[in-house]
Amino acid sequence: MSGNTSKTNLEEYAMRHSMAHILASAIFRLYPNAQFGIGPVVDNGFYYDFLIPGVSLSDGDLPKIETVMRAIIKENLRFEQYNMAINDALSWAEQSKQVFKKELINDLKREGTTLFKDLNHDELGIFVDHNKTQLKEVSFYKDGEFIDLCRGPHIASTGLAGSFKLMRISGAYWRGKESNPQLQRIYGVAFMNDQNLKEYLAQIEEAKNRDHRKLGQELDLFIFSDLVGSGLPLFTPRGTILRDELANFSNQLRLEIGFEKVFVPHLTKTDLYVKSGHMAKFGDELFLVKSQETKDKLVLKPMNCPHHTRIYAFRQRSYKELPIRYLETTTVYRDEKSGELGGLNRVRAITQDDSHIFCSQEQINYEINNLLKLTQKFYKIIGMELRLRLSFRDDSPQYLGSPEIWRTSEEQLKSAVEKNKLDFFIEKGEAAFYGPKIDFMATDSLKREHQVATIQLDFVQPERFELTYDASDGSKQQPVMIHAAILGSIERFMAVYIEHTGGKFPLWLSPEQLRIITLNQEDGVVEFARKFEIMAKKRGLRVKLDNGNESVSKKIREVERLKIPYSVVIGAKELKLGLVTPRIRSDLYDGLTSNTSFNIETFIESLVYERDNRLARTHIK
Amino acid sequence: MSGNTSKTNLEEYAMRHSMAHILASAIFRLYPNAQFGIGPVVDNGFYYDFLIPGVSLSDGDLPKIETVMRAIIKENLRFEQYNMAINDALSWAEQSKQVFKKELINDLKREGTTLFKDLNHDELGIFVDHNKTQLKEVSFYKDGEFIDLCRGPHIASTGLAGSFKLMRISGAYWRGKESNPQLQRIYGVAFMNDQNLKEYLAQIEEAKNRDHRKLGQELDLFIFSDLVGSGLPLFTPRGTILRDELANFSNQLRLEIGFEKVFVPHLTKTDLYVKSGHMAKFGDELFLVKSQETKDKLVLKPMNCPHHTRIYAFRQRSYKELPIRYLETTTVYRDEKSGELGGLNRVRAITQDDSHIFCSQEQINYEINNLLKLTQKFYKIIGMELRLRLSFRDDSPQYLGSPEIWRTSEEQLKSAVEKNKLDFFIEKGEAAFYGPKIDFMATDSLKREHQVATIQLDFVQPERFELTYDASDGSKQQPVMIHAAILGSIERFMAVYIEHTGGKFPLWLSPEQLRIITLNQEDGVVEFARKFEIMAKKRGLRVKLDNGNESVSKKIREVERLKIPYSVVIGAKELKLGLVTPRIRSDLYDGLTSNTSFNIETFIESLVYERDNRLARTHIK
Repeated sequence: MSGNTSKTNLEEYAMRHSMAHILASAIFRLYPNAQFGIGPVVDNGFYYDFLIPGVSLSDGDLPKIETVMRAIIKENLRFEQYNMAINDALSWAEQSKQVFKKELINDLKREGTTLFKDLNHDELGIFVDHNKTQLKEVSFYKDGEFIDLCRGPHIASTGLAGSFKLMRISGAYWRGKESNPQLQRIYGVAFMNDQNLKEYLAQIEEAKNRDHRKLGQELDLFIFSDLVGSGLPLFTPRGTILRDELANFSNQLRLEIGFEKVFVPHLTKTDLYVKSGHMAKFGDELFLVKSQETKDKLVLKPMNCPHHTRIYAFRQRSYKELPIRYLETTTVYRDEKSGELGGLNRVRAITQDDSHIFCSQEQINYEINNLLKLTQKFYKIIGMELRLRLSFRDDSPQYLGSPEIWRTSEEQLKSAVEKNKLDFFIEKGEAAFYGPKIDFMATDSLKREHQVATIQLDFVQPERFELTYDASDGSKQQPVMIHAAILGSIERFMAVYIEHTGGKFPLWLSPEQLRIITLNQEDGVVEFARKFEIMAKKRGLRVKLDNGNESVSKKIREVERLKIPYSVVIGAKELKLGLVTPRIRSDLYDGLTSNTSFNIETFIESLVYERDNRLARTHIK
Repeated sequence: MSGNTSKTNLEEYAMRHSMAHILASAIFRLYPNAQFGIGPVVDNGFYYDFLIPGVSLSDGDLPKIETVMRAIIKENLRFEQYNMAINDALSWAEQSKQVFKKELINDLKREGTTLFKDLNHDELGIFVDHNKTQLKEVSFYKDGEFIDLCRGPHIASTGLAGSFKLMRISGAYWRGKESNPQLQRIYGVAFMNDQNLKEYLAQIEEAKNRDHRKLGQELDLFIFSDLVGSGLPLFTPRGTILRDELANFSNQLRLEIGFEKVFVPHLTKTDLYVKSGHMAKFGDELFLVKSQETKDKLVLKPMNCPHHTRIYAFRQRSYKELPIRYLETTTVYRDEKSGELGGLNRVRAITQDDSHIFCSQEQINYEINNLLKLTQKFYKIIGMELRLRLSFRDDSPQYLGSPEIWRTSEEQLKSAVEKNKLDFFIEKGEAAFYGPKIDFMATDSLKREHQVATIQLDFVQPERFELTYDASDGSKQQPVMIHAAILGSIERFMAVYIEHTGGKFPLWLSPEQLRIITLNQEDGVVEFARKFEIMAKKRGLRVKLDNGNESVSKKIREVERLKIPYSVVIGAKELKLGLVTPRIRSDLYDGLTSNTSFNIETFIESLVYERDNRLARTHIK
């Protein structure tokens, strides 16, 4: 998700922060005995937590609260800042029965803070400054009758507030702790103007329609079963086609640049991960496997790299063989606390389009360059813009490998990215402990950013697994490993991609590419439709014939529900003329009318062309 | 393995049995104080167990023993049968210090037997007859000085023995129990004539050369790693190509007849297998998985059928949708006591080309027929003869489902097999508890029979999972499930196939199809070779260019080691003429000389033709 508050401009931030106060002011007018928690700015808006003795709010109360908020905005009340001695502040809280504010002021007194130092509110509302400056005064803001402990900033007056909408009410424990009282949290969104708010609300509506869990069911892509378990999706025939086409395309691009497929078992002795170091680092996330017949200590693999080192190392390698490039579409297992119910974002069996290159230090540049080009090509066809994060080391001691190797490698990554004229930023301290990496962020059609592909350098696994090759000078050298994935997690990518496209997949990814519908069940009609179906199948198209006795309109509703790109109705007219008039899914015909007729050979070949040239669209002329 | 003794003819059986006595007679001559265990007939031969106080035999002693055996044969001693009262027999054993015979006679006395009733010796030598006939006499055979407790039958005299060879000596506990004394077991093979013995010995030698573990290493197909664990092979790029090509071909044949691919997780709650009944039946063989983060009880899936029922059942099905056919190439896990070291015959992660059909009772015939045709097609191309076992129920109570359904289904299977004019036999009592099945036995080039494909009817899973469909009359009906696999276990199939072909794979299965070798490193030569390589790659051929500076003979040795079907040496002559003269692996050129030259386009197209027409051979003209 986008919306890192540190990147949002200050004006919008102050407006949203003021919006939280306006919400609190409204609650104060409506429920004078309300106790106030905290009210921070969040992505696209704000919230405020309240405890209103004897009152349980519901979403039905939101319009009433909005009305009071609008009144407060109309009154154009000034946001007045003033400081108060800390003990006076405590007396204020005591007097006005604001127990949560009192707790916060006591914390400030004990812990010390400068209050204004950091714009980032913490969701838990802990205003702690670790510099431990002795605090003498605290800051307050007042709008009308409502007074709040607050470090600001705010807009000058309520009349300057932008456009807002309250979204929902939920429960929230004070400071997020289950042992604390439960407060009522009201969420709102706020933007600088009506236009932006409208756009945002439309986007949310669209996101709801595109929710991959909803579409997954409507388009018949995947299911969950209580008997199988949460976070463990089963893919139906249609979903399996989408999975396979995506994975196959990633494979194809990699095979073209010299990768070779390998295959390793999912079940493995823990010894492998003790050796690799994963056991010490990720031991808690592993699924432990108990053999009832042997004493083997086994796990489900959380990573594939250690296995691939075993294939590399099964005989002594020569510099002449490098780079050695392995790819494998395979599943790793992570013992997630709770799988996201019904969704693909967070699963416990994660399929990766994993790749490992073993190469010499001198070959890194060439390999990275190839991987960059390949990733760009993939996302161009997928239709998502990429932004790259160069995740480099900082000065902390967690990074393994010599600083010299790090310096060179980080420079190699940076120069490769620059040479490819890619949009990138550097983030220090985000490297893996074993080497620097490039993380690819893709922006979807709803402007949300998702981390997808990755390219990582690794100096540590080759060391731990004592990998070597015979160099041209006869010496034994250690190869570098490059980890790469284009899709990343296929399940997560599918979630992103289903929402990106709203389930309107291009032809090459459509589980069903063409539906042939008979207008009636006359012999000649059905025969013609069957002939058509067989011809399309022969060209490898995924086609289905619907010659049931339902009405054509019912048959077409199914085509629309499944978002099948092309459909053709066959009746007496088509039979007579030998021509068909395809129905084209609206996003595909680029402004051309869909009223053109074709003989079936021409039509089939145009579909084949569109399928094989993944970016092709305007072939229907 | 072939060689079920009950099917071997009686004459050969008696000869081998007599051979065991001749071996024992020779030991008696060489070591008069030897104590004799038992000496049964086994596949292709016989063995005898001895305890020779103070003597430890080794394979080096075998020629000496063979010499004495030959002498006994030359002496043409009669095998004399006589009965002895059981107490006299005991005295004989006592007197001659034959402690093992004494134990056997005591058992006979206690347990009773008719001795002649059953020709099948039990390897443990327990001559028990469960009819518990009171035994008064026991049978003996005598040849020369050697006397043995024995029910026969034997040949008339030692001179009628066939051709034999002693193979090896190994240790064996008396009656297979570790707490008993260890005896020395001498194995021999015996045939009716020299010719048969020679053929057999040649076959053994060939089997050694074709051992898939040996070839797996030589051809660089798979490896094992101590860190990963026994029974858990890792497939190298070459092995992965072989795996994938086999699995893809099986998939292709099934997709053509209406199967659809699905994808399910390997990790699953035990609940699924409690419901399916597998937990109760196979609970011990399951790998139990412990989640550290949740309370879920999980296992690695031992079967795929329960998952596929979940996909079937995710919405109500109509008769119009049937048959629904799912296929998945996926791994199941069995907690084997010990993985066969270094081999693919017995692994703990077993990949299956699994298939499940959900259909109505009336559709069984059509589906079985399709599966039979498909399996025949596959094994015709693989080059192995099939024999079918119809595994039917007997009268035991373990079989679930109504007798009427069983009767109809068994008849359906039988009539489908007959209609396809297939070589079959019926074995009662071999059905699965859930339904009758067809097991396919394939004969390899060494005449060994392997169980491979299977087609199984299942009335139980649909019942347990409450599967239904809306029938055309509006009623709810229960579908039948058909389980099928063409390869069976891919790992086991690979073991069989590697040995069947001796690693000489046909073009379509060859990990590397063409090796281009440069005679020297002259610019023009390398350039021509590169152009050739690119052209071959464009046609999807698996080609590798070897333009290293090693000698051509060294390069060709590698081609031979890897059994690459085609290779081409490029030098100044080829460059000048623009023609190449392929080296063809001897099994491929069907008696044609390999001295013909081609332009590279023609050559490449002939390879493409051979690849795409899997049975094609004589394209090189």
